[in-house]
Amino acid sequence: MLRSHTCGELKFEDVNKEVTLTGWVQKVRDKGGLIWIDIRDRYGITQLLLEDGRSDSEVVKTARQLGREYVIKASGKVIERVSENPNLATGRIEIDLTGLDILNSSITPPFTIEDDTDGGEELRMKYRYLDLRRQPLRKNLELRNRLSIETRKYLDDQKFFEIETPYLIKSTPEGARDFVVPSRMNEGQFYALPQSPQTFKQLLMVAGYDRYYQLVKCFRDEDLRADRQPEFTQIDCEMAFVEQDDILSTFEGMVKYLFKTVKGIDIPELPRMDYADAMKFYGSDKPDIRFGMKFVELNDVAQNKGFKVFDDAELVVGFVADGCAEYSRKQLDKLTEFVKKPQIGAKGLVYVKCNEDGSFKSSVDKFFDQDALKSWSDKISAKSGDLLFVLSGEKDKVRKQLNELRLEMGNRMELRDPNVFAPLWVVDFPLLEWDEDSKRYHAMHHPFTSPKPEDISMLDTKPGEVRANAYDLVINGVEIGGGSIRIHDRDLQKLMFKHLGFTDEEAQDQFGFLLNAFEYGAPPHGGIALGFDRLTALFGGQDSIRDFIAFPKNNSGRDIMIDSPSIIADDQLDELNLKVTV
Amino acid sequence: MLRSHTCGELKFEDVNKEVTLTGWVQKVRDKGGLIWIDIRDRYGITQLLLEDGRSDSEVVKTARQLGREYVIKASGKVIERVSENPNLATGRIEIDLTGLDILNSSITPPFTIEDDTDGGEELRMKYRYLDLRRQPLRKNLELRNRLSIETRKYLDDQKFFEIETPYLIKSTPEGARDFVVPSRMNEGQFYALPQSPQTFKQLLMVAGYDRYYQLVKCFRDEDLRADRQPEFTQIDCEMAFVEQDDILSTFEGMVKYLFKTVKGIDIPELPRMDYADAMKFYGSDKPDIRFGMKFVELNDVAQNKGFKVFDDAELVVGFVADGCAEYSRKQLDKLTEFVKKPQIGAKGLVYVKCNEDGSFKSSVDKFFDQDALKSWSDKISAKSGDLLFVLSGEKDKVRKQLNELRLEMGNRMELRDPNVFAPLWVVDFPLLEWDEDSKRYHAMHHPFTSPKPEDISMLDTKPGEVRANAYDLVINGVEIGGGSIRIHDRDLQKLMFKHLGFTDEEAQDQFGFLLNAFEYGAPPHGGIALGFDRLTALFGGQDSIRDFIAFPKNNSGRDIMIDSPSIIADDQLDELNLKVTV
Repeated sequence: MLRSHTCGELKFEDVNKEVTLTGWVQKVRDKGGLIWIDIRDRYGITQLLLEDGRSDSEVVKTARQLGREYVIKASGKVIERVSENPNLATGRIEIDLTGLDILNSSITPPFTIEDDTDGGEELRMKYRYLDLRRQPLRKNLELRNRLSIETRKYLDDQKFFEIETPYLIKSTPEGARDFVVPSRMNEGQFYALPQSPQTFKQLLMVAGYDRYYQLVKCFRDEDLRADRQPEFTQIDCEMAFVEQDDILSTFEGMVKYLFKTVKGIDIPELPRMDYADAMKFYGSDKPDIRFGMKFVELNDVAQNKGFKVFDDAELVVGFVADGCAEYSRKQLDKLTEFVKKPQIGAKGLVYVKCNEDGSFKSSVDKFFDQDALKSWSDKISAKSGDLLFVLSGEKDKVRKQLNELRLEMGNRMELRDPNVFAPLWVVDFPLLEWDEDSKRYHAMHHPFTSPKPEDISMLDTKPGEVRANAYDLVINGVEIGGGSIRIHDRDLQKLMFKHLGFTDEEAQDQFGFLLNAFEYGAPPHGGIALGFDRLTALFGGQDSIRDFIAFPKNNSGRDIMIDSPSIIADDQLDELNLKVTV
Repeated sequence: MLRSHTCGELKFEDVNKEVTLTGWVQKVRDKGGLIWIDIRDRYGITQLLLEDGRSDSEVVKTARQLGREYVIKASGKVIERVSENPNLATGRIEIDLTGLDILNSSITPPFTIEDDTDGGEELRMKYRYLDLRRQPLRKNLELRNRLSIETRKYLDDQKFFEIETPYLIKSTPEGARDFVVPSRMNEGQFYALPQSPQTFKQLLMVAGYDRYYQLVKCFRDEDLRADRQPEFTQIDCEMAFVEQDDILSTFEGMVKYLFKTVKGIDIPELPRMDYADAMKFYGSDKPDIRFGMKFVELNDVAQNKGFKVFDDAELVVGFVADGCAEYSRKQLDKLTEFVKKPQIGAKGLVYVKCNEDGSFKSSVDKFFDQDALKSWSDKISAKSGDLLFVLSGEKDKVRKQLNELRLEMGNRMELRDPNVFAPLWVVDFPLLEWDEDSKRYHAMHHPFTSPKPEDISMLDTKPGEVRANAYDLVINGVEIGGGSIRIHDRDLQKLMFKHLGFTDEEAQDQFGFLLNAFEYGAPPHGGIALGFDRLTALFGGQDSIRDFIAFPKNNSGRDIMIDSPSIIADDQLDELNLKVTV
């Protein structure tokens, strides 16, 4: 090693040791006779000291050539620092320099390598290797590494095997769009990159592996919304001879273990909420339960009082914001604007202030007298000083709108502390969802999810009401993972394909290997996949996953650092028997 | 869980416990009144017992419906077995059955699920999920899992971070052929799948991550030779502020740790051998040093005695096979045929038997008298009873030929025990190698490998003699890993590109991001990549990697289980702006 120690480890106990450090010049302060250099590496920062006249003149000369981000090797004796820096792990010592080598120089970086950089998004992406030098990103990747280590440790202790599944697989039209890979050796044919190892992990259960996991890259060629990446990482898991409860308890154990070991937080037992209740009380299948504001349905007390908007609505629903009765006209107008934004789409917002004197002031005083408003307030369990919000309309739409308002109020009232974690299970998802575009039902989870046995009889009559043995892990309003008990019976799987609009031929062509496998003793099995990028961002207390990925792509799917994708040579295309048509 | 215990854990201490097991029917023996069922899962096999008349008649009836590979749930009481089976971990007990459910049936598998199966290669690939049920494959994947766990543990303890690098990167013409991925969002452009994360790990060093590793899939679109896979797994590593010795000692530590923890074997200090010596003494840059038979050059004693074949040869070289003087004419003919095979290409084989009486008998007695043969024998340190082999010809060719003969003799003399492990480092590889096809020098390792500083001056004059700071980890004649100290200086990297025939524009176009990164304080760094598939096969005592990969591809790059690659839909091609030209 070119160094004897890292820049993060020297302590007061090391005083008088002769040491050699290597790293980057964070800054140089040259105050006439005294020169201080901060040297930085992954492990920390250490202060180097030189004194003109006393120190070696060659070393002083070299020090005066240093610029930001120069790579240096510095030798000297550890001495006690005159003025301690309590913010630094190495703050009680400094190095009295006797040797200094420049290992590499640096031109001036395009932005400052500091916690709060002056670099814009685009510039930071282009010079990602410089952005990654900044401590916040270094901490993010360190957290990611720690989470992956602890995830594997937990699953290994639970006797899971990590088994690698292939990346060059087969394209299937079901689900999102595949990235494909032309095969040179099999002319005119293509592999696909996996959207998930779903069928392979099920085959591993058929093969008797009992407990499988993998931290694995998956790929989806979707039009990228903000904070979606074309390649992303999953903690992918599957278990045999289990029922839903076994999977929930195994991965509840993992969640608790990760919070405990990585963040030192004890998480109590995870609540389980039906999908139907999640929609009813939070208007979302991923409710943020760090705070209350559960929805209360008000049809019985709010309809038939002559307010046409309510009377015509399928659902009148509201929630209470504690202690917000003092909200100003301006604040209420802002919130009304918020719910009327096109992406939310409410027509308006009804509010009721529960005044301290027991009276009520609402935006619909014209239609509702004090008694009427009191009946709302009672139903919604509001207290004096609280503020009620009420929306109305078509059931599914109004719930989603009120969910947005609830989250917005959570933000405004600072009830969504990123250092507080409230995980839960959402269970009993619908098996199918109607797709307006294709005018048919699609699998809500995927076509391998088993319906609840007691609901199978409704597949023909009320397909939209069939519930699945499917569950999501939700933390702080974010869907961190989802899974299901799978179908392990060939006939039921064929029935499912039929209901999803596959002909027998299509089912056999695309999933024949799985249907065949089910002929040879497939065990009951189920699993889950967790989004590792998002889990890491959540642990890091941030919404965006981008800074938890070493080399992310931008919203056009480009890596602007390496300038990819790019045009390839004609002979490469020829070898692949391909022609580009643009 | 559907079970209370696995099929591998019940012991004599569990007698009288009521248990429930799940698994597959390995076999059923129905001897009139008594029925035994072997139930199997990942963890082991347990024997179930039924007695007609005594056991529940419904259970007996169900048992008589069972076939091989049926999935069952079996309940009963643990009892002591009358005749113990010492080959089975559960061999002292059996289960007196009181309940039996068929969880799934199975049609007859196309081959037997036993250690020695009757299934051919093709059939086993097609029904891989059944092949994977066999114990040898299950043990292979278990070994692979264990090796990955321990690899990560070692590197984590050494403060390496596992950092995921992207899979959708940029195609470069250098090196092997890339698999490419058309981009829908960037019309007419392609990503490439990584052949290795080489440039990204170097950028992580520039970014200050100090110690990086990743167990990562890599991709090469090569014409597949036997036992090559288009996708393979590497243990990819990089360290900053190091010299070659630091990397060798770090990964020597890893090799020792893996052998110790996974196989319980203590490996002594790894020998280091110059590339030049490896070629000289073993005719291979990956010598199998489990056995001797080092080459001895015989030009001085074998030339100028009138044997034209030797006189015209650049090199006359041989080795001694201990105690093989008794080899028959037929055996020697076979070996002569062996070296004359087209893929080896020797013109003939000269042998000398060192008889017990001190005389010599050779295939070239016509040209060499006893004294001459004695001088060979002395030079080669042969004893009575030994057999000398000698080949001659052009230096590089004859060494390779003799290497093949040496390995063949190692096999015949059973000196290549797969349970003996002899790792070594081969160091000081040439920087460049001449390519006859393109009539230019190519990087032997890759273009980022640093030349030895003392050899840089020869880059212009004798490029073939420039040595690199490059090294290979070789175990039992197999190259398990390779690496180098990298160039971290922009000007040296540009010089290297120039010597590899890149124009400045090409270098900038393909590797501009790396050259740019070198402007901003790149630290000295180096690394290594180990072939994880091959390492696992080696630990498993086998030559072929295929059965250490859960879902391998065949020699045409096809997955015959899922029937991939395959044709994709026209609208998929349209979206990608592609046309297939076959």
